[in-house]
Amino acid sequence: NIMAVNKTAHAFDKARLEQMLIGRFFFAPAFEIYGGVAGLYDYGPPGSALQANIIAEWRKHFIVEDHMLELDTTIMTPAPVFETSGHVARFADWMVKDVKTGEVLRADHLVKGVLEARLASDKEARGQAALTQEDDGKDKKKKRRDKLKHAPVQLADEAVAEYERILAQLDNHTGPELGELCRTHKITNPDTGNEVTEPEMFNLMFASSIGPTGKLPGFLRPETAQSHFLNFSRLLKYNNDTVPFASAQIGRSFRNEIAPKAGLLRVREFTMAEIEHFVDPEDKAHHKFVDVRDVELTLLDRETQGEGHTDVKRMTIGEAVDKGVVANETLGYFIVRIYQFLVKIGINPKRLRFRQHMKNEMAHYATDCWDAEIENSTGWTECVGCADRAAYDLTVHMAKTGAPLVVKQALPEPIVTEKEVAEFNKKTAGKEFGKDFATVRQIVENLDEVNLVKFKEELAKGSTTIKSPEGKEFKLTPDHLTVEKKTFKQNVREFTPNVIEPSFGIGRILYCLLEHVYWSREQDVDRGVLSLPPLVAPTKVLIVPLSNKKFDHLVKDVSTKLRKRGIFANVDDSNQSIGRRYARNDELGTPFGVTLDFASLSKGTMTLRERDTTEQLIGTIDEVIDVVTDLVNGAIDWPEAKQRLSLYDGVQAVD
Amino acid sequence: NIMAVNKTAHAFDKARLEQMLIGRFFFAPAFEIYGGVAGLYDYGPPGSALQANIIAEWRKHFIVEDHMLELDTTIMTPAPVFETSGHVARFADWMVKDVKTGEVLRADHLVKGVLEARLASDKEARGQAALTQEDDGKDKKKKRRDKLKHAPVQLADEAVAEYERILAQLDNHTGPELGELCRTHKITNPDTGNEVTEPEMFNLMFASSIGPTGKLPGFLRPETAQSHFLNFSRLLKYNNDTVPFASAQIGRSFRNEIAPKAGLLRVREFTMAEIEHFVDPEDKAHHKFVDVRDVELTLLDRETQGEGHTDVKRMTIGEAVDKGVVANETLGYFIVRIYQFLVKIGINPKRLRFRQHMKNEMAHYATDCWDAEIENSTGWTECVGCADRAAYDLTVHMAKTGAPLVVKQALPEPIVTEKEVAEFNKKTAGKEFGKDFATVRQIVENLDEVNLVKFKEELAKGSTTIKSPEGKEFKLTPDHLTVEKKTFKQNVREFTPNVIEPSFGIGRILYCLLEHVYWSREQDVDRGVLSLPPLVAPTKVLIVPLSNKKFDHLVKDVSTKLRKRGIFANVDDSNQSIGRRYARNDELGTPFGVTLDFASLSKGTMTLRERDTTEQLIGTIDEVIDVVTDLVNGAIDWPEAKQRLSLYDGVQAVD
Repeated sequence: NIMAVNKTAHAFDKARLEQMLIGRFFFAPAFEIYGGVAGLYDYGPPGSALQANIIAEWRKHFIVEDHMLELDTTIMTPAPVFETSGHVARFADWMVKDVKTGEVLRADHLVKGVLEARLASDKEARGQAALTQEDDGKDKKKKRRDKLKHAPVQLADEAVAEYERILAQLDNHTGPELGELCRTHKITNPDTGNEVTEPEMFNLMFASSIGPTGKLPGFLRPETAQSHFLNFSRLLKYNNDTVPFASAQIGRSFRNEIAPKAGLLRVREFTMAEIEHFVDPEDKAHHKFVDVRDVELTLLDRETQGEGHTDVKRMTIGEAVDKGVVANETLGYFIVRIYQFLVKIGINPKRLRFRQHMKNEMAHYATDCWDAEIENSTGWTECVGCADRAAYDLTVHMAKTGAPLVVKQALPEPIVTEKEVAEFNKKTAGKEFGKDFATVRQIVENLDEVNLVKFKEELAKGSTTIKSPEGKEFKLTPDHLTVEKKTFKQNVREFTPNVIEPSFGIGRILYCLLEHVYWSREQDVDRGVLSLPPLVAPTKVLIVPLSNKKFDHLVKDVSTKLRKRGIFANVDDSNQSIGRRYARNDELGTPFGVTLDFASLSKGTMTLRERDTTEQLIGTIDEVIDVVTDLVNGAIDWPEAKQRLSLYDGVQAVD
Repeated sequence: NIMAVNKTAHAFDKARLEQMLIGRFFFAPAFEIYGGVAGLYDYGPPGSALQANIIAEWRKHFIVEDHMLELDTTIMTPAPVFETSGHVARFADWMVKDVKTGEVLRADHLVKGVLEARLASDKEARGQAALTQEDDGKDKKKKRRDKLKHAPVQLADEAVAEYERILAQLDNHTGPELGELCRTHKITNPDTGNEVTEPEMFNLMFASSIGPTGKLPGFLRPETAQSHFLNFSRLLKYNNDTVPFASAQIGRSFRNEIAPKAGLLRVREFTMAEIEHFVDPEDKAHHKFVDVRDVELTLLDRETQGEGHTDVKRMTIGEAVDKGVVANETLGYFIVRIYQFLVKIGINPKRLRFRQHMKNEMAHYATDCWDAEIENSTGWTECVGCADRAAYDLTVHMAKTGAPLVVKQALPEPIVTEKEVAEFNKKTAGKEFGKDFATVRQIVENLDEVNLVKFKEELAKGSTTIKSPEGKEFKLTPDHLTVEKKTFKQNVREFTPNVIEPSFGIGRILYCLLEHVYWSREQDVDRGVLSLPPLVAPTKVLIVPLSNKKFDHLVKDVSTKLRKRGIFANVDDSNQSIGRRYARNDELGTPFGVTLDFASLSKGTMTLRERDTTEQLIGTIDEVIDVVTDLVNGAIDWPEAKQRLSLYDGVQAVD
């Protein structure tokens, strides 16, 4: 960054990036030799390592630092669990079919794609540059135009405004509304020009059957959350019966997407990381909120979107909570922690915003919900959701199963309440009413406080008459019963905790990160670089011996020393030139390289190369190991490293 | 161990252990509040941490130390993949049904359970002590007898021998043979006494459907292996086009077990760790075999089992490979690495054996297969499989898809071969044979080397006659064709690598480990201890402040210092007595505890407690941090720690 390295010499080229990522086996379409399956991907060695490093940092940042209780639970879930949670009825997307070919499309994606294409065409017709992200706009526009296969079409000004309003509120539409939009705006399948059917719901859970009987239907979980709720009592006990506490889980989930086409951004099987923070509904303050309240964030609130706009606001989380933009401290605390995590692993903070859910978009029970959206070549993508789910989940599972999913809290002082209570004289009342006594008693006990007071007053006057639901009347006198004010003491408070849920899509974060750190060398667009921070880079240090014969003992020595310091180094002793070996590792995102050459043998020196600048320094082997250890651990940066070692100009080498 | 701690004062009690493990939420039945589902379990905080530590050590021991290529692939798999691999046809168990209740039972487990119960009953009748593991035998026998609900029955000597022979070879039986055993030995459902149906196959894969069309059937993978094979070409490229190399993956797999009842030992969803080591079929030597050849192992070979016995042999792996007991060096290398890993994480080596698969038990294509079996309260359980799968997998996927799943190796020197080749004179032969020319040509080209030489000799004599499959004769002369010896040069060798596959069931290992490290304090059977090695213990150090008010800054200080040294410590500042807090942590397997008391404030001291001996040492806070760091990292043991700190006798404390 200090060095004059031009990382924006070439426009972002998604196709080139994906070719490089698949070529280096960061990931690849799963079952490729069988023709592949949309929405299923495999991670190869560098992708697996990158993912493992992101997860390790997630565990440290969230679980360890906030003492969360980790879980590892079952994916295969019996159907009743998702019937209770509402997933069987409502975890669905709206799909439409091409009326002629039967091709299945997701309704909201269809509307979005077609309207965006029309707006892009309109802009071109008006001679304007596309207003989308500079790196990306051209290509996308080009592709869209190819698809439309006709010249740019200018829209009426009112149509432009209308389309922009629809797009800003897209997530707010129901299925029938999406169908209405298709008819009103003549939206057809862009691949065929055919009309599409009315939207119908498609449940996104993969279904299966547990055991050999065929009588126990199951679903693959679409999120890990339910298992936290089901285990609530055990977690509470583990936490010495007190809230707040959080459980956390990193694991695989499944969503049977209708027509996934967006690479790693929309997949049918994915690794997610979820936190369920259980909190007293009457106290959503967070004891560490004070540590984060001055952190400034980019917010896109509900109101702005409701007005059809997408303007963001910069605001500290303290201000946002004070003003009621963010519902409570705990939600605010997690929004900041999410922000800090994403920036730490290398997400560009300028391409990160928090978008509040609109009312219709949010689950009916939720209090507030914010998505961390990361900008990438397809637009802004939700990568983390952070919702206050209130007491919904625990309440429904408790109602269904009878398990006491509540907190019992000993009150520091008992709560004293007074209440009017009716007490019958069983002898006299029994004699008077006979088999109707139970009915009479029931009627009196069902009176609310106000009516019971009225009843008491009438009784004090001598007698009063009550009526059964069937219309039968009963006259009561103070002989039959008394009504008196009594004092009650409550020593234990029982409540259902609320849940704040930060939920991370690891694959989406990983892919956006790769877009953010990718660039090409100014002199050669084919020489790609991934400027991954050392924290998450698959390999921290590459060891490059000049030839693969004479340096074996030095390679082993350096390798062992680095490992003792906990630094993961890889050796590339292939027969390719050092330049090609470094170029390969620039594509793999390896931040540092050390070269062992003849000078290493004769003078005990080693050179150190930095990936982004390609600058090289030289020092004794032990000096270089010290410096690279500090670099990888983030104790120093490259300019500081340059003060500790000499610049290598190629002269010191003995070839 | 050095101290006189009596860990065997109480007989092993499985029920007591499970109650403790579930109580402390190592694990619990999944969906418990919905009544649970057999074979599905959730891990709670200590179980998750234990599992994560086992996996971290696995990654280090196998992936890092042997430079394996890690993968993270898709669980949901389109059906054609498992049709090719043979799983659709053959990945099944034999099930029988109770003829009256319809209860489903696994046939081999039924036979095993009933015969073992009869043998146990027989032993009791003969007044013999049960010959099973001392920790376990009594209880198991008791339960079985309760089930049988009748007095011990003595068997004829021949029946005892016959039952023992059947049990030793149980895995060798086909479904019809199991049905025959049920009839011959009158084996019925032990819960009802009813007869069972003929065994039928039940496929163990969970089935589902991918996407909204319903036309793309999928299965949840029952192992991770296939995705390694499907990605072989990308892995090979990543490894610079050379073998041997290994890919590795840790991930979830699914098997729809028929009637799982054995806790964590037989589950429907599990985490496994698999290695696929790709090797030249003509060279299965391993360059690191020399490092392990003197390691002695306990082996139960195929021949011994074939004779109906289960006697083990102690042998070095060098001897085993030399004698051909183990098929090759690479297989032998991995068997030792498996052994070393299991012992490192705390498995008792005396309760660990390697059992060779019998011929019928092994997949037809496999060359050799050894299971690491760990003894536990249910007997000997396969926890790791280690198979030489030959070229089967890559061959079938290549045949099905046409993808070149082969290695192309430039030969250092071209292989020169000579071969007789027939060459027709198209003009003369075409004229002579007309529309039969193609047939004639085919017949000659199909001749093998020997017959072609004979043919050439006859031709040299003037003419020879060949016969078509239909019996038509053709007379050939040197005018029609010549046969000449030609020289061929081959510069590239192409071959399908063989695969050596070590495959680990992490949950089974975890459960056996818990049985091996569990014991009760001599003075109180209810005070359980898990002597987990620090390497895998969920928490390494427990910090216990005397009260939870005055010591906050010290707790934070000690906690931070330990974290900087990479040591994961937990604080227990609950209001319980120090004794109860330590007792809880003995159950959680926390190896060390440090206590902060008033002397910590006044004199800067801290005490250090060792879990197994409950001995306590005292020193300055920094001294104790140094010692506990060395203990956790395995640099010193407890006797050495005792030389560096003073024994704490309770007097130094200021309460």
